[in-house]
Amino acid sequence: MNDAERIPPRSGTAFRLAAGATLTVIDPEGSQVADLLAFNADDIDEVISSGRTFDYAETIFLTTGNTLFSNRSRSMLAITGDTVGCHDFLLTPCSMQTFLHFYPDKPVHRGCFGNLAEALQPYGIGPDRIPVAFNCFMNVPVDPATGKLAVLPPRSKPGDHISFRAEMDLVIGLTACSAYASNGGSFKPIDYRID
Amino acid sequence: MNDAERIPPRSGTAFRLAAGATLTVIDPEGSQVADLLAFNADDIDEVISSGRTFDYAETIFLTTGNTLFSNRSRSMLAITGDTVGCHDFLLTPCSMQTFLHFYPDKPVHRGCFGNLAEALQPYGIGPDRIPVAFNCFMNVPVDPATGKLAVLPPRSKPGDHISFRAEMDLVIGLTACSAYASNGGSFKPIDYRID
Repeated sequence: MNDAERIPPRSGTAFRLAAGATLTVIDPEGSQVADLLAFNADDIDEVISSGRTFDYAETIFLTTGNTLFSNRSRSMLAITGDTVGCHDFLLTPCSMQTFLHFYPDKPVHRGCFGNLAEALQPYGIGPDRIPVAFNCFMNVPVDPATGKLAVLPPRSKPGDHISFRAEMDLVIGLTACSAYASNGGSFKPIDYRID
Repeated sequence: MNDAERIPPRSGTAFRLAAGATLTVIDPEGSQVADLLAFNADDIDEVISSGRTFDYAETIFLTTGNTLFSNRSRSMLAITGDTVGCHDFLLTPCSMQTFLHFYPDKPVHRGCFGNLAEALQPYGIGPDRIPVAFNCFMNVPVDPATGKLAVLPPRSKPGDHISFRAEMDLVIGLTACSAYASNGGSFKPIDYRID
């Protein structure tokens, strides 16, 4: 088991993940969210797709045994372990615009969107290529009668984690959430490990 | 009120929609689905985004009064009328791969994905740029306990319709659904009108 890397609060990173490697995303302090993106390292036009994943999984609650699919219907990341079982794949990373909309009285921040855009730029991935992210630990219940979404504090406790096996060579984008609602009002780091 | 155009069963089309124009999508026979995409006509890297729309609408059930947003957080289509109130914005247009997965015993079809890819190609929009579509009349309830999705017959009756006002100059992709589950096992046309 390798050492974990730390993503500081309200920041993001990007890295290559080789086919067969396992990425474990860890919430070291609890109740924090990490937005995850994946691109085919050999062809960045192939990207993680919430819609294709929902098509094949036939559920919006993804956990151990489910696979995150690309826009080309190929497996990108298989979820191999999950101590939380509550993640979101509906919402897009917060941006300057969403901060202005949701938190008009607070200092504006570029959000996970801006952090991902900067981290992915060296891989030739521009901001328009950022799709719906797999938001690890994010707690977004859906009201079945009205469709209404809520953003509640994550259920993750300190040390909780989710693991993904890369099904192809990938470029990963990963953040420690910057928004107020999604992490219960606190900004915390995220750790990750590659084995 | 202009005349309606007809999209034959299991096919698709693309056209320009000027800012301020109203697109009405009509289910002429009832219980049929139409997958809708929208791109900024002046910059096709700006595209309809389920995630951004859910962010701002705070619901997955979109109807009159809601707006479909782009990946750049701008209004693309305002829903100005809706006689059904039941549409899907979770799933991606069916493709050859999804037909092989869901209907292994049936003849393979390129689905709305293939129909949209062909229709959008003259506008310089490639298949990798096809995101989650706004699936007019598609009936996809979510089980709140398990997250499980079902694909039920649409609730639309003959002549039911949904109208969208273009908030910018757009390229629209629109289909008459090709899949078995989403339209109750029948293949029917879709009509649309631009006013």
